[in-house]
Amino acid sequence: MKIYGDSISGNCLKVKWTADFLGRGYEWIETDVLQSQSRTADFLAMNPAGQVPAVILDDGRPLAQSNAIIFHLAEGSALIPADAYDRGRMLEWMFWEQYSHEPYIAVARFQVKYLGKAVAELEPRILERGAAALARLELQLGQTPFLVGDRVSLADVALVAYTRVSHEGGFGLEAYPAVRAWVARVEQALGIA
Amino acid sequence: MKIYGDSISGNCLKVKWTADFLGRGYEWIETDVLQSQSRTADFLAMNPAGQVPAVILDDGRPLAQSNAIIFHLAEGSALIPADAYDRGRMLEWMFWEQYSHEPYIAVARFQVKYLGKAVAELEPRILERGAAALARLELQLGQTPFLVGDRVSLADVALVAYTRVSHEGGFGLEAYPAVRAWVARVEQALGIA
Repeated sequence: MKIYGDSISGNCLKVKWTADFLGRGYEWIETDVLQSQSRTADFLAMNPAGQVPAVILDDGRPLAQSNAIIFHLAEGSALIPADAYDRGRMLEWMFWEQYSHEPYIAVARFQVKYLGKAVAELEPRILERGAAALARLELQLGQTPFLVGDRVSLADVALVAYTRVSHEGGFGLEAYPAVRAWVARVEQALGIA
Repeated sequence: MKIYGDSISGNCLKVKWTADFLGRGYEWIETDVLQSQSRTADFLAMNPAGQVPAVILDDGRPLAQSNAIIFHLAEGSALIPADAYDRGRMLEWMFWEQYSHEPYIAVARFQVKYLGKAVAELEPRILERGAAALARLELQLGQTPFLVGDRVSLADVALVAYTRVSHEGGFGLEAYPAVRAWVARVEQALGIA
């Protein structure tokens, strides 16, 4: 498998961590988003959406979207709950991540750390919704050690990717003790600490 | 099953269409987002994200996020490809929908049709990215009758929901003939024409 990814991107690291956890071999092809390397003709032929991560599976077929890739890689493994309801909850968190967490927590980090914006210059909407996303995580993680019950799943992989670096976008975790403890727990479970 | 949904929301209609297609019985509980009925204490106790759709399954357990709900309902049915790679591609489209399509195509429609904005007043980013999303669909649907090969799947359910009403947000489909033909094909396949 070839993984086209940018090492600064949490979405790309999800794929790396999942492959590493599962012991799947791969070639990592560093693809610099800031240099528009995901917008070249060759890249767009593989993934017309022009986004990383994207993978080329061993049989030569492409797959994109971080959460779809990790689902595909992890099918049949312990990272996807065997129980159908728990699987549904895992996907609930993964879709929520892309709609209600990443566009605020990851975007704030990108604008602050890589584009040089001050936290005070971020759109108010980003600050409000990012804080709401962390509060939503805190509520769940005050009740269960992982997002879906008592075992690590792809929901944790998807959500930890940007939560663990949320301070880089101005979202400190001081007010979210359950989230902080969970980040450490997931890093240990995945071996990425 | 109880479905809490707003009939004006494509995300909610995805759940209705999937349940209808599968012959699953349900009680539809109309939940008016414009009246903040998804923000009451009772609703938030069921879905702390404060979003519709949300369902209460027959065993009393809740599930949220439109694409997670339809995945759960459709497990083991023909709406999810039996082939693992095709299943991955289906999820790729579904995650892309929530990140790169819905925030532009659905948001434009909401602002124009329900908040009374003029199309010219929409953020330029919404217009650009909405058009890019439709171009991405056109590219695929010039090659295959459905988003994943030659059979209808949840990818089509997820993407048709707002694409079929995209003109209500100013995104006419005149320049996208393959998308137009696909909308009709999916509506017929799902029995929602």
